[in-house]
Amino acid sequence: MTYLLNSASDFSHEAVLGFAAANPQYVSAVHGGVVRSTETPRDQPALVIGGGSGHYPAFAGWVGPGMGHGAPCGNIFSSPSASQVYSVARNAENGGGVLMGFGNYAGDVLHFGAAAEKLRAEGVDVRIIRVSDDIASNSRENHRDRRGIAGDLSVFKIAGAAIEAGADLDEAERIAWKANDATRSFGVAFDGCTLPGAQDPLFHVPESTMGVGLGIHGEPGIRDLAMGTAREVADLLFEGILEEVPEDRTGRVAVVLNGLGRVKYEELFVVYGRLAERLDDAGLTPIQPEVGEFVTSLDMAGLSLTLVFLDEELERHWTAPVDTPAYRRGDLRELPAKNEHATRTEFFTPGAEPVPTATAESRSLAASLHEIVKLLESVCAEHEDELGRLDAVAGDGDHGQGMVLGSRGAVEAGREALNRGAGARTLLVHAGTAWAESAGGTSGALWGSALTAAGRALSDDASADAAAGVEALLNAVEAVQRLGGAKLGDKTMVDAAAPFAAELQARFEGGADLPSALTSAAGVATRAAAETAELRARLGRSRVLGDKSLGTPDPGATSFALLMEALAEHLKKASR
Amino acid sequence: MTYLLNSASDFSHEAVLGFAAANPQYVSAVHGGVVRSTETPRDQPALVIGGGSGHYPAFAGWVGPGMGHGAPCGNIFSSPSASQVYSVARNAENGGGVLMGFGNYAGDVLHFGAAAEKLRAEGVDVRIIRVSDDIASNSRENHRDRRGIAGDLSVFKIAGAAIEAGADLDEAERIAWKANDATRSFGVAFDGCTLPGAQDPLFHVPESTMGVGLGIHGEPGIRDLAMGTAREVADLLFEGILEEVPEDRTGRVAVVLNGLGRVKYEELFVVYGRLAERLDDAGLTPIQPEVGEFVTSLDMAGLSLTLVFLDEELERHWTAPVDTPAYRRGDLRELPAKNEHATRTEFFTPGAEPVPTATAESRSLAASLHEIVKLLESVCAEHEDELGRLDAVAGDGDHGQGMVLGSRGAVEAGREALNRGAGARTLLVHAGTAWAESAGGTSGALWGSALTAAGRALSDDASADAAAGVEALLNAVEAVQRLGGAKLGDKTMVDAAAPFAAELQARFEGGADLPSALTSAAGVATRAAAETAELRARLGRSRVLGDKSLGTPDPGATSFALLMEALAEHLKKASR
Repeated sequence: MTYLLNSASDFSHEAVLGFAAANPQYVSAVHGGVVRSTETPRDQPALVIGGGSGHYPAFAGWVGPGMGHGAPCGNIFSSPSASQVYSVARNAENGGGVLMGFGNYAGDVLHFGAAAEKLRAEGVDVRIIRVSDDIASNSRENHRDRRGIAGDLSVFKIAGAAIEAGADLDEAERIAWKANDATRSFGVAFDGCTLPGAQDPLFHVPESTMGVGLGIHGEPGIRDLAMGTAREVADLLFEGILEEVPEDRTGRVAVVLNGLGRVKYEELFVVYGRLAERLDDAGLTPIQPEVGEFVTSLDMAGLSLTLVFLDEELERHWTAPVDTPAYRRGDLRELPAKNEHATRTEFFTPGAEPVPTATAESRSLAASLHEIVKLLESVCAEHEDELGRLDAVAGDGDHGQGMVLGSRGAVEAGREALNRGAGARTLLVHAGTAWAESAGGTSGALWGSALTAAGRALSDDASADAAAGVEALLNAVEAVQRLGGAKLGDKTMVDAAAPFAAELQARFEGGADLPSALTSAAGVATRAAAETAELRARLGRSRVLGDKSLGTPDPGATSFALLMEALAEHLKKASR
Repeated sequence: MTYLLNSASDFSHEAVLGFAAANPQYVSAVHGGVVRSTETPRDQPALVIGGGSGHYPAFAGWVGPGMGHGAPCGNIFSSPSASQVYSVARNAENGGGVLMGFGNYAGDVLHFGAAAEKLRAEGVDVRIIRVSDDIASNSRENHRDRRGIAGDLSVFKIAGAAIEAGADLDEAERIAWKANDATRSFGVAFDGCTLPGAQDPLFHVPESTMGVGLGIHGEPGIRDLAMGTAREVADLLFEGILEEVPEDRTGRVAVVLNGLGRVKYEELFVVYGRLAERLDDAGLTPIQPEVGEFVTSLDMAGLSLTLVFLDEELERHWTAPVDTPAYRRGDLRELPAKNEHATRTEFFTPGAEPVPTATAESRSLAASLHEIVKLLESVCAEHEDELGRLDAVAGDGDHGQGMVLGSRGAVEAGREALNRGAGARTLLVHAGTAWAESAGGTSGALWGSALTAAGRALSDDASADAAAGVEALLNAVEAVQRLGGAKLGDKTMVDAAAPFAAELQARFEGGADLPSALTSAAGVATRAAAETAELRARLGRSRVLGDKSLGTPDPGATSFALLMEALAEHLKKASR
C-alpha cells in the first residue's frame, strides 16, 4: 500500500516538489513537471519524457545531461495533461525542437499529442516516440502498437545520448525509433499496488500464482501460472524474449532487469545470476546490464526483463555517460562539466505567456472568432443534459458537463486574450488550451487540440479569407483524428468529423462559398452522427457495449455535429 | 514477502554471485563476498564494509573507487562469519591495512572482531568502526553503543572518500569515527518483511499504527503511534534528531531519507518536501541530500531520516566523487580513470592459504600444540551432554554440540597444517579459523579467536619458552574479552576467563613455573564458573533468566574452566 501522503489529490504534485527540492543541481520544478536546472546548448533538441507518476525513477529521475531535458509528471498512473506537457516542453525547448517520449498508452498519446499540436502551432518542431516494448501486449508484427514498460529506460537513454552527441531532431527521432524497434520486454507480477489514499489494491494476483505479462498499471496479462522459483521465472522471461531475437543480431544486448517496487534487489540478483547463464548459452553478451528499480509501479510486486539488440550505434549511445538524479553511468568526464552550464533563472509559467503583437485586422478577426467560441458554449449549455444521457449509455455520463466546462473555459481565456490584444491565431491557441484544461478527459483534449490546430491556419498579422477558414476547420478535424488515433467506424467524434471534413473540402473546392460548404458538411456530420446509432446497434450484440446501447448515437459525434450545425448557421447569418 | 528464490539456504550466496555477474566492471566475487575487480594503489588502506544480506545497496553495492574496497556478505540479516570477513579483507588488503566498518550489532562485532584478530596475527593492521547512528536504540550519552542503520551510508562514504584522498589508516579511522559521532538517524516502520523461504513476516506493526524507532531487523522500537500523514512523519523524524543537534554545528548537514523497501520513491519525496521546509526553518542547509533506498530491509515498510552535522572536512568527503554499482555521485573526473587500474586476476581463496615455512623447532612445538588441541576435543566430547544441559536452562542448548564441532574442526585443520609443515603460529591460526567455522555461533567465534590470538604470541621461526606460553594464554583471554564485549559479572565465559588470566599472570610473575601457575589459575576459573550459578540465582529473581536458571552455572564459563583444568593437568604431566 501507499503509506505516506498528506492528501491523495496533492500526492503527485507534492512528490514533484519534494523531488526538485532534493535535486536542485539537476532539476527545477515548473508548471507540470521538471526541467533541467542548468542551461542547455542553444539549438540542442529537447528530450521531453513523461507519463503518469508512480513509476519513479521514470521519468523525472532521468532528467539531466545525457538523458532527458524535461519531464511532465501526471497524476499517479495518469497521463500528464496537455497543458503540463506543453509547459514542460516550452521550458525545455531551446531552439532545437522537441522530441517527446512516453510509453504507448492512450492517455499519453492524446495529451502529449495535443501539446505537440500547440507547440507546432507556435512554430516549434515536435517529434513523438511512443515506447512499445512489452511483448505481452500485442503481436510481434504490431511491435509499435505494444505498451511501453521498462524499455522506457533504454529508449530514452539512447535518444538522450544521441542528442548529447550532437544529433539534430531528425537524427534523434530516427535513433529513438530504432532503439524502440530493437527493445523487447517481458514481465510478471505477483501482487498489485494500492494507489495513494485508496483502501484496496488496484488488483490482486491469486496467491501462489504469477500474472504473466501483467501490465505496470495492472493491465491484463496473457495467463496466470503457478508461482515459480527464481530460476524458472528467469527462464520464462528470457525464453519469451528469445522468440523475438532478430535475425541480424550482433550478439550484444543491453539488459535491464527491472523490479516494480516490492521485489527487492537481492531477489533480482538471484534472478540475474540465472539470466547470465542463459545469455551466455544463447551466445548473447550483456552490455552494461542494469539490475534494480527503474520503472516502478508504486509497491507492485513484479519484475520485467528488457533486452535491447544492439548494433554499434545503439551500443555507443547505451554506454555513453549520463548524469541524472536517479541514473548515472559511464565516464562522466565525457560530459560537459557542470560549471560549464549556468544555472537557469528564468522559466515559463502558464498564464504568463506573452501575447504576441497583432495587427488591427487580426484583432478584429479574433473578436469574431471569440463570438463563435461563445456560440459554441451556448450550444453546449443548451444540450448538456441530452449529451449526458447519450454518454451515460456506454460511458460515464459526463460528456455534456465536459463540453460545457471546456467551452466556458475557452470563452473566458478568449476574453482575456482579446483584452491583451491577441490576434486570431493567439486567440484560438489560448481558447484551445483553456478548453482542454477546463474540461479534462478525452473530449477536452480533442476539442482543445481542435481549436489549437485551427489556430495554426491563421496568423496574428493578417485577416483570413474563406480558404483560410476551410483550412482551419480541416486542420481541426485532422488534429482530432491524429490525436485520438480513432478511425472511421470506431464510434467516436471521428465518425462525424471525417465525413464532415471530406464534404467541406469537396464543396469548397467545387466552388461553394464557405457558409454553403459548411452547411452541407454539417448536414453530413449530423447524418453520420445519427448513423453511429446503427453502428452501436450492431456492436450492441457483441459484448463491447452491452444491449442497452442499442440505437443510441455516439455522444462525441453528436456534439460535433450540433456545434457544426450552429457554426454553419452563424456564418450564413454573418454573410448576409 | 520474498517472492523470488531457488532455495532459502542458498539465497544470499546466489544473490552475491548474481550481483557480481551484473557488475563485473566494479566487483569480483571471492569467498565470503565481493572486492573491487580492479587493482587499488599499493599501501592504500582497504575499507571493508559489511553485514548481513537483505540490506542492498548496503553493503556490496558500495564497493568501488571512493568508497568500499570489499564487502563480506552474510546470510539474510546475519553477520558474515569471521572466515567470510577474513577472506574479503585478505583480498581487499594491499599493504595499507584494513578499516572494517559495520553496523553495531553483537554478531557483527564478534565476527568482524574475530577476523581482525586473525589478520592482526598475520601482521596486518586492522581498525574497526562500528556505526551507531540510531538514536532510538540508546541514549545520547551512549551514542557509540547505539545500533547502526542508514548512517552506514554517510559514515562509509566519508571514510572511503578520505582514503581516496590519501588518508592512511590512522587518519581514515579518525575521520570515520568523527563521521559516526556526527551522524544521527531516526526511523519508523509500518510493516515487517518476510525472510526468504519463510511463511510469516518477521514481525507485524499493528494496522494503522507506526513503530517508532523500530530497528531494521525488527528490533523493538520505543513506542507505537497512530499512523500519521507524510507531514507528521517528517516532523516526528526531524524533531527526534533535532534534539541532538550539536552546539557547535556549522548549519550544514548531509541528509539521507532512506526507504526500507516498500515505502516508495514518490512517498519519500512527499516527506522530503516537508523536511526541506523544516531544515530551512531550523537554519540547516542540506548538502547533497539523498532520497531513496540505501539501507533496505528486504521489503519492510518504513523509512528513516539521517542527518550528519558537517564541518569542512566531513563535507568535503561527503561530496567527493564516488563510483560504485549502486552509489555514484560527484564529479567523477576527480577519480582516477578506470583504465588507470588494471583488472585484477588473482584472488585469495581460503583453503589455499600458503603455509609459511617454519623452523624444525617451531614445527616440533606445533606438534605439541596439536596434542593440546586434541586434548581439548576429547574434553569437549566427554562433557558434551552436561554442557548442553547447562545451556538449555537459559539458552538454546547447543553449547556442548558447538564445542564438540569446533574442537573437532580445529583438530582436523591442525592435522592438515602439520602435514603441510606448519609452525606453531600457523597451526594455532588455522586451528582457530576452523574452530569458528565448524562451531558457528558465539562460542565458536570466541574460541576461534582465542586460538588465533594465542598464535600471535608465537612464531613459525622459534620455539617458545614458558613466558611465551603465558603470553599466548593471556592473549587468548584478552581476545575473548575484547570480542565478546562482555565484562566480569555478565555471566559469560569471561566470568571464568578474567580471574583465570589475573591469577595466571600473578602466579607466573611471582615466580611459579607455567604448570603450577596454570593449575592455580584453572582452580580459580573453576570456582568462578561455579559462582556464576550464584550470580544467576540473584538474576533469576529478575525477569532476565527466569526462575528455572536458579543455581545453574554459566555453560561458557564452565567449559572454559573444564578445558583449562585439563590443560593444566596435561602440562603438569608433560613437565614431569
